[in-house]
Amino acid sequence: MSGNSFGEIFRITTFGESHGPALGVIIDGVPAGLKISAEDIQKELDRRKPGQSILTTQRSEADAVEILSGVFEGVSTGTALAMMIRNTDQRSRDYGNLSEIFRPGHADYSYFAKYGIRDYRGGGRSSGRETAARVAAGAVAKLLLNELGVKIKACTRSVGKIYAEKFDWSFVEKNPVRTADPDKAEAMAEAINNARMNLDSIGGTIECVVENVPAGWGEAVFDKLDAVLAHAMLSLGAVKGIEFGDGFAAAESLASSNNDSPTADGWASNHAGGVLGGMSNGAKIVFRIAVKPTPSIAQKQQTMDRAGNAVECEIHGRHDPCLCPRMVPVVEAMTAIVLADMMLRNKSARI
Amino acid sequence: MSGNSFGEIFRITTFGESHGPALGVIIDGVPAGLKISAEDIQKELDRRKPGQSILTTQRSEADAVEILSGVFEGVSTGTALAMMIRNTDQRSRDYGNLSEIFRPGHADYSYFAKYGIRDYRGGGRSSGRETAARVAAGAVAKLLLNELGVKIKACTRSVGKIYAEKFDWSFVEKNPVRTADPDKAEAMAEAINNARMNLDSIGGTIECVVENVPAGWGEAVFDKLDAVLAHAMLSLGAVKGIEFGDGFAAAESLASSNNDSPTADGWASNHAGGVLGGMSNGAKIVFRIAVKPTPSIAQKQQTMDRAGNAVECEIHGRHDPCLCPRMVPVVEAMTAIVLADMMLRNKSARI
Amino acid sequence: MSGNSFGEIFRITTFGESHGPALGVIIDGVPAGLKISAEDIQKELDRRKPGQSILTTQRSEADAVEILSGVFEGVSTGTALAMMIRNTDQRSRDYGNLSEIFRPGHADYSYFAKYGIRDYRGGGRSSGRETAARVAAGAVAKLLLNELGVKIKACTRSVGKIYAEKFDWSFVEKNPVRTADPDKAEAMAEAINNARMNLDSIGGTIECVVENVPAGWGEAVFDKLDAVLAHAMLSLGAVKGIEFGDGFAAAESLASSNNDSPTADGWASNHAGGVLGGMSNGAKIVFRIAVKPTPSIAQKQQTMDRAGNAVECEIHGRHDPCLCPRMVPVVEAMTAIVLADMMLRNKSARI
Amino acid sequence: MSGNSFGEIFRITTFGESHGPALGVIIDGVPAGLKISAEDIQKELDRRKPGQSILTTQRSEADAVEILSGVFEGVSTGTALAMMIRNTDQRSRDYGNLSEIFRPGHADYSYFAKYGIRDYRGGGRSSGRETAARVAAGAVAKLLLNELGVKIKACTRSVGKIYAEKFDWSFVEKNPVRTADPDKAEAMAEAINNARMNLDSIGGTIECVVENVPAGWGEAVFDKLDAVLAHAMLSLGAVKGIEFGDGFAAAESLASSNNDSPTADGWASNHAGGVLGGMSNGAKIVFRIAVKPTPSIAQKQQTMDRAGNAVECEIHGRHDPCLCPRMVPVVEAMTAIVLADMMLRNKSARI
Repeated sequence: MSGNSFGEIFRITTFGESHGPALGVIIDGVPAGLKISAEDIQKELDRRKPGQSILTTQRSEADAVEILSGVFEGVSTGTALAMMIRNTDQRSRDYGNLSEIFRPGHADYSYFAKYGIRDYRGGGRSSGRETAARVAAGAVAKLLLNELGVKIKACTRSVGKIYAEKFDWSFVEKNPVRTADPDKAEAMAEAINNARMNLDSIGGTIECVVENVPAGWGEAVFDKLDAVLAHAMLSLGAVKGIEFGDGFAAAESLASSNNDSPTADGWASNHAGGVLGGMSNGAKIVFRIAVKPTPSIAQKQQTMDRAGNAVECEIHGRHDPCLCPRMVPVVEAMTAIVLADMMLRNKSARI
Repeated sequence: MSGNSFGEIFRITTFGESHGPALGVIIDGVPAGLKISAEDIQKELDRRKPGQSILTTQRSEADAVEILSGVFEGVSTGTALAMMIRNTDQRSRDYGNLSEIFRPGHADYSYFAKYGIRDYRGGGRSSGRETAARVAAGAVAKLLLNELGVKIKACTRSVGKIYAEKFDWSFVEKNPVRTADPDKAEAMAEAINNARMNLDSIGGTIECVVENVPAGWGEAVFDKLDAVLAHAMLSLGAVKGIEFGDGFAAAESLASSNNDSPTADGWASNHAGGVLGGMSNGAKIVFRIAVKPTPSIAQKQQTMDRAGNAVECEIHGRHDPCLCPRMVPVVEAMTAIVLADMMLRNKSARI
Repeated sequence: MSGNSFGEIFRITTFGESHGPALGVIIDGVPAGLKISAEDIQKELDRRKPGQSILTTQRSEADAVEILSGVFEGVSTGTALAMMIRNTDQRSRDYGNLSEIFRPGHADYSYFAKYGIRDYRGGGRSSGRETAARVAAGAVAKLLLNELGVKIKACTRSVGKIYAEKFDWSFVEKNPVRTADPDKAEAMAEAINNARMNLDSIGGTIECVVENVPAGWGEAVFDKLDAVLAHAMLSLGAVKGIEFGDGFAAAESLASSNNDSPTADGWASNHAGGVLGGMSNGAKIVFRIAVKPTPSIAQKQQTMDRAGNAVECEIHGRHDPCLCPRMVPVVEAMTAIVLADMMLRNKSARI
Repeated sequence: MSGNSFGEIFRITTFGESHGPALGVIIDGVPAGLKISAEDIQKELDRRKPGQSILTTQRSEADAVEILSGVFEGVSTGTALAMMIRNTDQRSRDYGNLSEIFRPGHADYSYFAKYGIRDYRGGGRSSGRETAARVAAGAVAKLLLNELGVKIKACTRSVGKIYAEKFDWSFVEKNPVRTADPDKAEAMAEAINNARMNLDSIGGTIECVVENVPAGWGEAVFDKLDAVLAHAMLSLGAVKGIEFGDGFAAAESLASSNNDSPTADGWASNHAGGVLGGMSNGAKIVFRIAVKPTPSIAQKQQTMDRAGNAVECEIHGRHDPCLCPRMVPVVEAMTAIVLADMMLRNKSARI
């Protein structure tokens, strides 16, 4: 109800602030009998963790996961699976000077208006650091989906106005931008670096593709597969839009060119991005999200303090000059969480 | 769980198929003491009902609402509020020939894959006709929000490649396209009419603006205001994308130009579309959705039947050549439902 | 959230007041492929309906059910299943004189304190009449459980201080008290009649037994099978207690005599009433509930009006002198709803 | 869905097994602005912890709580509040010999039937040790309720056939049985000790009384206050029954003696136990639960192993010879959790 849980059967509840003692998640609804090791989880966390390259924040966190419950002799028991990640590099002093002001483009003002109190250290609960818990949960969801052959992959599709034109998925983990286009990786990296050197940051888009989802996942009317994926993606800080398949281009088209038709060999086209009537149709699921530039920048900006005075601010924490590279595994994690849940929900579709 | 409910405190559960006896909704969570009349509901249903102009389907439905419970002496009692709309013009014979085939661009294949059974009359539960129940519920949500001065308005922003350039909101209900741009209304109507005469249909976008939402609505982490609005919008059939504020354009920008700063007189800019950190920030909420062209068209199309044979189909029901005009009140309704729920959820934010 | 829904996967949402236009239910989560007819539902409603004998209220309601959605060609489609029962015999004039006072032993004061408004006609939403919707939903749950051989049966176990001593289940529908003890039926009927003639009412207990539930239904920790059954039973007006198996007698016992042991031929004893660790263990599920006497009686009683004045009241509606006979099918219905839900929830227990 | 969460707005999700690394809880929905310290939590945990006297298990656990999130500068922030308790005295070797057999009266068989895998160390997730997490969450709920003057107290009402006859609440924490009757404390202690020395255990009942709950808490129809309290209580292992107010005695009574009437000075009687129509009526809330004898006893018992063979077992862990003394704070905790949730839910009852 207060927003710390997501999902229905495969349901995650997360906790933790940027500069608190720890982050973590309880997954309610992991079916019994799934092989799970801390290494499986750690591998995904390592893809998200800070300090991977000059293109990401220099905060140094091991992000070491500890499994606290729900796994016995290497196998899920069917009961609550809890995981925890200790924070180790909390330089709260970076934030002392921000306790009285509302950072531009951030959650500060909204949180203060809602709660009347605000953990100002690195954004507290509103920090992107909370996504570590999502990635841990997503790693478990991926293990569950792997059993069914479902494959999720995401990449940085654009940085600023530089767009990937081809998709070589094997390239994604080989470049710090996590783009799938080897011809654009350098230009994208340069755009991020330029932003960084100008004490600025830059936006981008992420594309996600899911293969081997059987037809029929997603629920009628309100919990359509695309609706719940949209919920999941927009629940990530900095995401400002999402589109499936042709997306906004479909809004400029005619049905005669936009309709997808089934054939005995699969779909004749995939304008819909693998979702029709809110359910997977057996084609690849394809969607893209818009990620705004990291609001924390070291440039001088105008803003307001709690007393309503106009003030200048400079933000001296360690921040990502572009969020996309580290969000790629987070997007995959949230996609996995949605699909694992929809797979389990689908078990009750027929007698 | 199976997708017929939406919301947490102001929670709607709908029922009804395109060609069944009736559609309706139960709202759980209408606070007691709200003045409600059938006329308040009917007024919104009339905006959505078919047959309003040559630009919409010619199906003839009175869409007369009956309040079945939850209102006593003109006032909500706090208990379940149920409303029902009888179907009256079910020409099921239009669909008999479609019982064995999967219509292109439709939910037919997905539903059959999921349930193993399909009400083929007009799409059954997957029909856009289910949105009548949403509009009825949204009318109640609007009454609740009216008490707080919240104003929701939507319009057709584009049809095909014709985009509104100005927003005269008083014009929306005066033209059958429901655009806010008087200079573009005619061209948009013509584009819809052309599609219709070519036995085709055309896509478009809808813009929604909400005024007077206080800062702090929306929940931390997973139930961010924009995430839940995205869920609500993508739960509408034919919606393929959503963006808030600058949306996908933000993904091409730098933080130095994209960050919004609070001032004592309000926000200096509104690139975020009124939502920061997943909560309303006091600025206007602004979002746009992409609506694909109605998949039902009378042109001959290739598709597949249940036995896997390639077949031709022609769809002879009565369909909207562009969904946007009639979706405008539906978008408002779902927005109202989300906001009413968030307003009530926010009551527990502080001791 | 506001109390009109129950269940997780097989989830019912009901509406309707004692003297409003109609009562009804939407079931979200009926799996597709289940044969359902209005007759199946009506049969159960007829067992609950008023006016069956001199031992029950003389209100005359046909309680005719109409299926509004979710069934196509005699089979569930997997989408929302809605049912409605029109009220036909609303003698609201009986209640006009009660609009200003709080009836003793009733919900009147609590509802007024909560909502500040109260539908005083027959108790409005707090009337036992709402259970008609539960019985309709329970009839669908029974059909689902029938597919698995699960058998639910309930009976009046005691009236006042007269307790059944044997259980001949074939006798239950043959006597107006719905007891299972042919030797006590007459004495129980007399006790009820005496109460009625004294303008009074009398309490009783109901016993419910469920056979053929496989081991493993019910969820760990909070949603134990017995916990959810207790929730379901205490959600019925007038129920003041519940016990499973030996129940309160177990609290006087030693483990050496209370422990049940599994054997290759089933359980050696069933002190637990078929639930261990919150899950069915394969033995018969057995529980009993305590039902207080109907608070509406025609005797003069002292009470208070809205202004806080002490007043006398006499309640002249038509009421059951003992609730048990008509609650028997309601108890079965709620048990079926819980078990259907637990059966579906259990589908996700293992990979 | 899988049973590890409870509540709607004040919603707890727990994790942890008897012999795993840690237990804990995330509370979603603690309103911002509540003063909370680890000491407040520890105080309640100390009341539940093992080893308090010869009447309880000799397992030695510090049960030291660590707050991991949701509290900043001593005050709740409104975001997820997580707490963890490390297990320190896990003598798993006690259980090695139990891995292949199903202990009588325990969850072993049910869990194995459900999940196909079982953490046999001390019952794993089904162990009463999980209630430590409930007590931690309940301590926070108590702080919230304290702000409103709500007072919750529970005591051991009976051990075996020895029943308290008077209620001196100040005595409860002064005797190891936690009874409220100074004249019966010794006999109760002796009964427990006798059971212990006979390698047996004994049942009992617990009574709970809540003062100062305003009228109107609890929701209509399904989430009645007593229904949700019953759910909460039966979710505790070993609880076999519950009754409110006169409870089962009400089932033997007439309305003329059972009805409670409001007066300007409060209720003239309280047969209902403070709940009418499923909502608090302003009178004291009173209920009792039946607790079966601890199933773990060192006597030889007959049971079955996984292969279906009849086997003898002796259980050599350290167990409570009577559960009531240590369950008293657990009952209070669950009561507090239900009431905190109902208080928050009630905020949406009226516009």
